[in-house]
Amino acid sequence: MTTTRRPTATRLALAAAALSLGAAALPAYAASAEPIQPLEPARVTDPAKVELGKKLFFDPRLSRSGFISCNSCHNLSMGGSDNVAASVGDRWQKGGINSPTVLNSVLNVAQFWDGRAKDLAEQAGGPIENPIEMNSTHEIAVATLRTIPGYVQEFRDVYKTGPLDIGQVTDALAAFEATLVTPNSRFDRWLTGDRNAITATELKGYELFKNSGCVACHNGPGVGGNTFQKMGVVAEYKTDHPAEGRSAVTGNEIDRFMFKVPTLRNVELTYPYFHDGAAKTLTEAVDIMGRLQLGRVYTKEENAQIVAFLKTLTGEQPRITLPILPVSSDRTPRPDPFAPIVAPRKK
Amino acid sequence: MTTTRRPTATRLALAAAALSLGAAALPAYAASAEPIQPLEPARVTDPAKVELGKKLFFDPRLSRSGFISCNSCHNLSMGGSDNVAASVGDRWQKGGINSPTVLNSVLNVAQFWDGRAKDLAEQAGGPIENPIEMNSTHEIAVATLRTIPGYVQEFRDVYKTGPLDIGQVTDALAAFEATLVTPNSRFDRWLTGDRNAITATELKGYELFKNSGCVACHNGPGVGGNTFQKMGVVAEYKTDHPAEGRSAVTGNEIDRFMFKVPTLRNVELTYPYFHDGAAKTLTEAVDIMGRLQLGRVYTKEENAQIVAFLKTLTGEQPRITLPILPVSSDRTPRPDPFAPIVAPRKK
Repeated sequence: MTTTRRPTATRLALAAAALSLGAAALPAYAASAEPIQPLEPARVTDPAKVELGKKLFFDPRLSRSGFISCNSCHNLSMGGSDNVAASVGDRWQKGGINSPTVLNSVLNVAQFWDGRAKDLAEQAGGPIENPIEMNSTHEIAVATLRTIPGYVQEFRDVYKTGPLDIGQVTDALAAFEATLVTPNSRFDRWLTGDRNAITATELKGYELFKNSGCVACHNGPGVGGNTFQKMGVVAEYKTDHPAEGRSAVTGNEIDRFMFKVPTLRNVELTYPYFHDGAAKTLTEAVDIMGRLQLGRVYTKEENAQIVAFLKTLTGEQPRITLPILPVSSDRTPRPDPFAPIVAPRKK
Repeated sequence: MTTTRRPTATRLALAAAALSLGAAALPAYAASAEPIQPLEPARVTDPAKVELGKKLFFDPRLSRSGFISCNSCHNLSMGGSDNVAASVGDRWQKGGINSPTVLNSVLNVAQFWDGRAKDLAEQAGGPIENPIEMNSTHEIAVATLRTIPGYVQEFRDVYKTGPLDIGQVTDALAAFEATLVTPNSRFDRWLTGDRNAITATELKGYELFKNSGCVACHNGPGVGGNTFQKMGVVAEYKTDHPAEGRSAVTGNEIDRFMFKVPTLRNVELTYPYFHDGAAKTLTEAVDIMGRLQLGRVYTKEENAQIVAFLKTLTGEQPRITLPILPVSSDRTPRPDPFAPIVAPRKK
């Protein structure tokens, strides 16, 4: 996988192109020329697999403690995020980076802030065995699931062939997560022709978002998520957070502080912002982005307009019926969240 | 509130009465004479209040960390419990007692294992300010909710009068929890006339459950939850768990080790068992109960029959659409689960 970092000059050219496209409050019928495209609703082709993935997503038995599930940090009641700067992991360990939203993550060019997983299935295996997250292993997670008759049956129904393994687990999780898209935001309705779907202020915010260059990185149906870019282009981003971004994956110094551009879909719901969660409000995030990425200081009014626009990106949240998890059998390990960890954990 | 402990002699008489009622595989039309009655479905009279209570139930902003919600320990995907012996609280503190299920808790004579809360609303206020659970205060929780416009509006719609206070919060939580009943178990269908709803083995288990005296404490629609009884009647219950039971509430030595009899509804889902969570399987729990409460050692076959009967008590689980929580405003505190606790916490 290669990074798609563009030199600043190219990015500014892109921004200028966006400006020339968008300066004059495009009529709605020109939506196809916009740098942001409407989200398509999820198409479910294998409902049984999605249902199985949903159960796994909500199942804390994938974690060593029996207390943490995927939904703990990608909470579908809260924009698919946890609304804290650093997530809570096994035994209250502090998470390494601000949990990105799972919503619309299927659109991302790669997964994790540094793009180290190529897709949702590869991502899903990560937290299970991350020592500061779920702190289990793939072996333990699979062995646990194999003791649960309801799961054994469901995996067999979905995959036909056995045995139940980590590939099936992450495939099912990915199938569920791929359904977590949020179409029909007010902005999408505007894009597809409803002139009254957003207000004049929100439209001004969108024009500014385009004209001042935000769309150079935040574009496409995900309004981001499709490229890696440097955090701190015009001015350095000051943080004591240790994350180095994509260079940790590629080993190339040029990739230092390159992060996957986060989606701005549902951004109103996914505070706090940035990989370190340092920006507590959208106002703060827009201000910092303007200064560091574009060398622009938005006025208070401009900032408010952009924030107003960003709030039109909140779409229909997935309607989830809480799964009833298959019951453990007598053979299923009974997790003890307070047991001392004796064995060395693999990284 | 007085305890309803009965001397052992009385309890054995009750058991004998149950035996004379139930020895001969009662025909189904005699269900009204059974010591267990079918569960009635929930009747929702104020759906807006229930919906508000559901949001609060799933909202981790009621906790100091922003990470723990009511559903964390009373997980509606897992029988309304957390399936660990001791719950995980703020900063991974160890819970004081095995989380009882929230399912059918509206039927309980009182709430908590020691009955220290008279009803669901009084219970709901407890964990919010328990230093080892959510570790917040009622003042902080209410102040937080007041900064969230969606909540302010919903509370106004439901309660008409302001201001939003802890009484409204716990009232809404209780209204939601009162809907969490699980009717139409296979056993209930048998009780109401479907002779084929349970197997011959399960029926034998029920007969034994009645004839050997379990029904003396586990009776009524909740199959428990309606009296306090001593843990360890015939023989002492050995545990290093510090809970003293009802004497901690009444101050009377005679109430030592008196606990609210847990409901056996959905007991298959609510492992591990007892106030200390020491029994990991139903087989183990039935064996210990027989020895300590009834002075009876069930054979392996008898134990299996009772366990088979108990599994017929799993009812229809509440069908919950995951709530989408009202978004925080810029004024809403951003919780930091890793911040040092500086102020002394009130008990």
